[in-house]
Amino acid sequence: MSTNHFLPTDAFDAWFNERREAHRFVIERIPFQRLEQWGFDPQTGNLGHVSGRFFTIEGLSVDTNFGSVGHWEQPIINQPEIGILGLLIKAFDGVPHVLMQAKMEPGNINMIQLSPTLQATHSNYTRVHRGKAPHYLDYFLDAAPRRVVADTLQSEQGARFLHKRNRNLIVMTDRDVEVLPDFRWFRFDQLRALLRRDNLVNMDVRTVLSCLPPRDDGGEFVPDAAAPGDAFGHRLQASGRVRRGRHTFQELLNWFTAQRMNFHVHARTIPLRDTRHWQRTDDEIRHESGRFFSVIACRIEAGSREVTTWTQPLVQSAARGLIGFVVREIDGVLHLLVQARPEAGIYGEVELGPTVSCAPDQYADMPPASRPPFLDYLCAAQADRMRYDAVQSEEGGRFFREENRNLVVEAGEDFPLDVPERYIWMTVRQLKEFIRHSHDVNVQARCLLAAMGAW
Amino acid sequence: MSTNHFLPTDAFDAWFNERREAHRFVIERIPFQRLEQWGFDPQTGNLGHVSGRFFTIEGLSVDTNFGSVGHWEQPIINQPEIGILGLLIKAFDGVPHVLMQAKMEPGNINMIQLSPTLQATHSNYTRVHRGKAPHYLDYFLDAAPRRVVADTLQSEQGARFLHKRNRNLIVMTDRDVEVLPDFRWFRFDQLRALLRRDNLVNMDVRTVLSCLPPRDDGGEFVPDAAAPGDAFGHRLQASGRVRRGRHTFQELLNWFTAQRMNFHVHARTIPLRDTRHWQRTDDEIRHESGRFFSVIACRIEAGSREVTTWTQPLVQSAARGLIGFVVREIDGVLHLLVQARPEAGIYGEVELGPTVSCAPDQYADMPPASRPPFLDYLCAAQADRMRYDAVQSEEGGRFFREENRNLVVEAGEDFPLDVPERYIWMTVRQLKEFIRHSHDVNVQARCLLAAMGAW
Repeated sequence: MSTNHFLPTDAFDAWFNERREAHRFVIERIPFQRLEQWGFDPQTGNLGHVSGRFFTIEGLSVDTNFGSVGHWEQPIINQPEIGILGLLIKAFDGVPHVLMQAKMEPGNINMIQLSPTLQATHSNYTRVHRGKAPHYLDYFLDAAPRRVVADTLQSEQGARFLHKRNRNLIVMTDRDVEVLPDFRWFRFDQLRALLRRDNLVNMDVRTVLSCLPPRDDGGEFVPDAAAPGDAFGHRLQASGRVRRGRHTFQELLNWFTAQRMNFHVHARTIPLRDTRHWQRTDDEIRHESGRFFSVIACRIEAGSREVTTWTQPLVQSAARGLIGFVVREIDGVLHLLVQARPEAGIYGEVELGPTVSCAPDQYADMPPASRPPFLDYLCAAQADRMRYDAVQSEEGGRFFREENRNLVVEAGEDFPLDVPERYIWMTVRQLKEFIRHSHDVNVQARCLLAAMGAW
Repeated sequence: MSTNHFLPTDAFDAWFNERREAHRFVIERIPFQRLEQWGFDPQTGNLGHVSGRFFTIEGLSVDTNFGSVGHWEQPIINQPEIGILGLLIKAFDGVPHVLMQAKMEPGNINMIQLSPTLQATHSNYTRVHRGKAPHYLDYFLDAAPRRVVADTLQSEQGARFLHKRNRNLIVMTDRDVEVLPDFRWFRFDQLRALLRRDNLVNMDVRTVLSCLPPRDDGGEFVPDAAAPGDAFGHRLQASGRVRRGRHTFQELLNWFTAQRMNFHVHARTIPLRDTRHWQRTDDEIRHESGRFFSVIACRIEAGSREVTTWTQPLVQSAARGLIGFVVREIDGVLHLLVQARPEAGIYGEVELGPTVSCAPDQYADMPPASRPPFLDYLCAAQADRMRYDAVQSEEGGRFFREENRNLVVEAGEDFPLDVPERYIWMTVRQLKEFIRHSHDVNVQARCLLAAMGAW
């Protein structure tokens, strides 16, 4: 086995640090007027690129019957094109490996993170502009249908993006693969270990991993077995095989359809300049309360030999978020507590989310009844119930150092099986059945499922 | 068995005619200015109800890379609320029966058609307005989860409606059910026979029937067996059980996702008055060419003892459409030729459609290469290849006497297995797997599947 094929875990940090040193990065916040090729539309105040490509920051007006606020306005990232996030898999000596890249994004915490084999825009993929093709694109374009392990369209953050979707694609190959400088092959058990570290495996990898097919699906690809002694991992894997849970799949569909019918979220774009309660200063578009998030501008200098410089807007969150699953054993099978979550920008309007996803600081002064259900339970959990606890980053190409605490807490048998109407218990197998179809499971649930190693 | 429980087939016509006679209906076309409670907005020219309820006719501006016309504008029905179409099922002596209504809709051909047990608006269902509840609503509201046979959100006609969805709901009951005057119980084999008649079983019944779960799904409900001697029916049913077809389900997902990525259909509402190439006369909103469809106004008088009168806009198609499946046996299993169909108003943007759905007259003068694929094949089919041929209506609450020829033609072994990229062969079982999830299969494919008895 050549050294390209595998990076022993104890050599990972040396390699990763070396990659970080190999590139020079400077990120600097700048006032909007120093943005190059980006500007505010004189009519609408929308922030966009002169070419009309990439994305624009527009206003969004939202009316909903979900939550305590029936109407609000906010800036939103409008990026209607579908991008591709791709993982390339190859077996060496019968063990599947995944090809990942140590990649810089301007908003990344620690500057570089492990990224998928392929991150391609729609124009990259369809080669409309005939520019330089992204590395490894051909493996995805030319994959024989029987070598495609997963392929589905998935939503991104509905509080930040308007109807943004990415194609999540996993492909196996038998061909020889040249391993380029920033790339390495990883075993799935290594990935499982790296996912327990903070801000190392990026969001794009996590969402694609969540699309791995259920373990009893009859496909040839089985990523890995839980490590010996990892009791929780073994139970997760069992829950990814068992077809029957507390509810039949038809019951889950019935519940989900009813929730989708109960909640409406009508969102329409408006000129950014007309977005009430939001202010534009020289270097920031912010809510007058200072809460939620702001839009900022950055100048980036990157490169080792050749230096590339560009400027772009980024979105910066006002506070760290919390994303958590309560899990519980029911009749011997591990179940996840899932919520039906309406959101303004998601494609499915109401999608399946983790038990909790919120910015806890926003609720700090509120009485318990006004706080999101199960938030206090998650935050008060003792260490012996904590099955996963790490800080993970959102996508660094759009978000400036945005991170969320990811928590999985196992509830005991005293935890009620009866939950509020918007919540339901399901197995990993059942949640994966929803992920396989597009627009059913939100990005927070998908990424947390991957982070906890439920594949 | 009481007479309420079952209507022998030879008594059907007498009952149905009697129901038609029992109600008096007068439909009259009127100029727009005679509409009561409906009017044109002075700013936008949109046509709406004074209450803001029901629906509005607005303008739609569409940009797409699908087809030969990259941009167009058209009127569109905007009705964002989710309605419910429900079928109530009960077994008598072990045989499942479905409760249907002989129901008048203003746009219906023949005035009354067989309709689902329940057609409820969102406000009916959530009882926001506390008005009179629709008949049988409680059976659907109170159904125990394990008695729900199917429950999913589905798109309607994407060329006429903007993001219209209905909840398609099938519920079984063991309770005693009072059979109201316009209602009767039907066996599924009767329904199969009635679906071979023109314009009798309405569109709402057909779409809900298409949501019946696959036959090998392990549920307790099995509607019926094909009649003895109905070879095609038996092969349809086999194709609704067999899991393996020419392609694995993962291959179908891979193809579908690629098609969804290839085509974009960006649609945004515009003021109806700014909709280019459309003209408003005293009694019609029409395309300047006279093609496509027009918006008209009608006055309706209905009732037996109590007479109800109202006025409303309706949409009238310029020509009869054609909806057809080419089917073919592959390795001993019947397959349907399905297309990935982009449409302006559908929720999923690109959904699975039948082999052909178009208005053939629009292509009459075009060279064969410009006509929709497989249209000529369907139209030229000999009688011995014709498995289904009937004229079926679109929803009479919105469409004025709109009908489509529904065709199923079985191709021989000389018909090519290799089809254009936007088309793929799949079994009934596989198409039903897509129907089970929301926003994947369009209304034309669903209704034709039901009409041909593929349940």
